[in-house]
Amino acid sequence: METALHFELPEFLARANSQAVTLPNAEDRMRFVLDLARQNVAADGGPFAAAVFEHASGRLLAAGANRVVASGYSCAHAEVVALSLAQNRLGHYDLGQADFPACELVSSAEPCLMCLGAVLWSGVRYLVCGARGEDVTALGFDEGPKPHVWIGELRRRGIEVRADVLRDEACEILRDYQVAGGLIYNASRS
Amino acid sequence: METALHFELPEFLARANSQAVTLPNAEDRMRFVLDLARQNVAADGGPFAAAVFEHASGRLLAAGANRVVASGYSCAHAEVVALSLAQNRLGHYDLGQADFPACELVSSAEPCLMCLGAVLWSGVRYLVCGARGEDVTALGFDEGPKPHVWIGELRRRGIEVRADVLRDEACEILRDYQVAGGLIYNASRS
Repeated sequence: METALHFELPEFLARANSQAVTLPNAEDRMRFVLDLARQNVAADGGPFAAAVFEHASGRLLAAGANRVVASGYSCAHAEVVALSLAQNRLGHYDLGQADFPACELVSSAEPCLMCLGAVLWSGVRYLVCGARGEDVTALGFDEGPKPHVWIGELRRRGIEVRADVLRDEACEILRDYQVAGGLIYNASRS
Repeated sequence: METALHFELPEFLARANSQAVTLPNAEDRMRFVLDLARQNVAADGGPFAAAVFEHASGRLLAAGANRVVASGYSCAHAEVVALSLAQNRLGHYDLGQADFPACELVSSAEPCLMCLGAVLWSGVRYLVCGARGEDVTALGFDEGPKPHVWIGELRRRGIEVRADVLRDEACEILRDYQVAGGLIYNASRS
């Protein structure tokens, strides 16, 4: 049967997804995600990673990273990969079901326009970000026409946002990627 | 090896993707897409479909439909599915490569916030829409905080938009879905 959106996870990511990990606070969760971002760059990926945790317990549900170039799918941003793996694990498109613990997406950087939408539709109740959008666009990546009040737009829809968690460490990964001559795909054509 | 974002296409969609189809004008392409949307509702999908064509020749590259509920992935909107299948067929995340014919995404409805971003990053040069965002939100679906000037934002990034193509026919599919009691997932939680 023909399938859509099918791609293999690199080994480090498959391993991360099979580990039993519980991280009680946001900083430790971000440190875990930033480590994935570094491993992803080493595995021919973009300098972005994300993971879904149970908000209260800190149990890891799924880990993702930007696999756009390797997978050949422009939608394979870290957030989309992590959210999709979590939904696959839960067996449901809505991570916000009433009988399921509230989920938190921890991302090494602010979501782009597409991922802002992906977060909205995923059912997560919490979003934790490292680098800011301006840190990402400084590299040449386009974030798209996001509303300036994007945090408010998420809150209005029941998603709490915590920004700037380990921002300096997150920015260091972006700078290292740039210095190493990493590919800036998705740059604006205008 | 563990995979991400893996789901099977329903039979009508697998068939559409294996057909040799060439449709010279936008209306015929939209008619083809609206027919897919109707078939998708009959196959437990949402009332949305999309397809990628070579803009000049009208050759079909990939056909998608909203498979959120059936696949268990909230990102499986029609546009994401069609764009991903086209990228899989081309073997590249960027449909806008210089040595490839300009691509056009034909969607039964205006893109939501997530799909607006997905269109931006896909490399398509043309977007053709049937129903408007307001027609979709009238059903209870949330389109997200899209910029009011979204058409201008796409144009500024080199993507030409043609809206309202067979809008009445597209809206009829939405109304039929509503009358039949179709599931409105992704509704705002606020």
